[in-house]
Amino acid sequence: MADLTIAGLRGMPEILPGANLPALIVEAIGRARLEVDDGDVFVVTQKIVSKANGRLVRLDSVEPSAPAIEFGRRAGKDSRLIEVILRESVRIVRMERGVIIAETRHGFVCANAGVDGSNVAAGFVTLLPENPDEDARAIRDALTESLDRHIGVIVSDTFGRPWRLGQVNVAIGSAGVKPLVDYRGCLDASGQRLQSTVIGVADQLASAAELVMGKLSAVPVAILKGAAALLGDGRAADLIRPSDEDMFR
Amino acid sequence: MADLTIAGLRGMPEILPGANLPALIVEAIGRARLEVDDGDVFVVTQKIVSKANGRLVRLDSVEPSAPAIEFGRRAGKDSRLIEVILRESVRIVRMERGVIIAETRHGFVCANAGVDGSNVAAGFVTLLPENPDEDARAIRDALTESLDRHIGVIVSDTFGRPWRLGQVNVAIGSAGVKPLVDYRGCLDASGQRLQSTVIGVADQLASAAELVMGKLSAVPVAILKGAAALLGDGRAADLIRPSDEDMFR
Repeated sequence: MADLTIAGLRGMPEILPGANLPALIVEAIGRARLEVDDGDVFVVTQKIVSKANGRLVRLDSVEPSAPAIEFGRRAGKDSRLIEVILRESVRIVRMERGVIIAETRHGFVCANAGVDGSNVAAGFVTLLPENPDEDARAIRDALTESLDRHIGVIVSDTFGRPWRLGQVNVAIGSAGVKPLVDYRGCLDASGQRLQSTVIGVADQLASAAELVMGKLSAVPVAILKGAAALLGDGRAADLIRPSDEDMFR
Repeated sequence: MADLTIAGLRGMPEILPGANLPALIVEAIGRARLEVDDGDVFVVTQKIVSKANGRLVRLDSVEPSAPAIEFGRRAGKDSRLIEVILRESVRIVRMERGVIIAETRHGFVCANAGVDGSNVAAGFVTLLPENPDEDARAIRDALTESLDRHIGVIVSDTFGRPWRLGQVNVAIGSAGVKPLVDYRGCLDASGQRLQSTVIGVADQLASAAELVMGKLSAVPVAILKGAAALLGDGRAADLIRPSDEDMFR
């Protein structure tokens, strides 16, 4: 009856630097007695990928620069946190009212350049993975080998948006999933050619997964079943709008 | 096993002005032999709500103003379409490279002020519903009465985003669903208080629904099952970031 189902993967342990994420995912699947089928998409949060990669910074170890101290003072924020954000940024898009919207090395534009202190030990923050598309690829390769299924993997993070309140999950890494589905030139149900419809499918898969992950319980992996039509090639980097086509940078 | 399932509702007829959408949805549910349970969320596309409300404009009937003619000439676009877009806008946020990003009367910021020629008869465009929150409320009231279930209703549209390619579904109308879930002050799995996490749940529900709707087949309604925890009060208007807090208007 359902076209798509979404299951949260419970029972994942706390992830430490160096953890073998695919092996831990396979173990948790076994304990939860979940079936994995061709066409499933695994959505894995940035937080556990960053932890496994050791992308953690202890704020006590950070020496804030003069600009970080100045902005921290104005915004009432920890200048060491600001320093980490500035180091992770290639460009500051907005820096006002205590909020930093920055462009990361990957080209993502997001709050605090993805530096985040939630769901991590006190006094630490996580940085975004250095190459989340490669992480997605590595997790997919390992899961494909262990499970012998044709699957996709998305690494998700939670980004705010201009104009709309609330954050939503997006794909920052992707392997084996079509990041975009381009309907331009196709005929719609009225028999007309669609002119500008390109759907950010990988972002929508990430958003769907968030609905079962929540933010308080430890559900850092979700499995979307029935997504075979959305498997394919591409990377989450394909979802980044090139700077020169962007009206809001 | 699954926490959430998403079913596309097939067999909806072409929607004409004055159509009784809730009655047509209930009939299609019966034909498809779908079960409706407490906690289900119905996502209904803007397109069929606009059609049922008669929010259609025949381009032949439009007299373009001088600014619309000028922009149409520069952008290589139909000046009558530009005229309709300008009429639906309270403010133009960007107007360059043939693209118009406009703020609508509702406060939505989107391409072409929501004016759209896809999935509608040739020579016509649809306008956004005048009050999509009220439409969601009316559909919910009628479905609740017919089906005797505790459900939510979202009216969805497909919006582009700054910085990222691809459009995603968002909620432009909502009834019986929490538009935002605010985790600020809650303890995360590490025992720390979350400081800024507010999730745009209604938008994520809309995005999840798009995955089974597609853009070519006539699947203008999806049912998300298992979403009882996301039912609640609020409107999609709650998702609009107030102008004076918005760094990108």
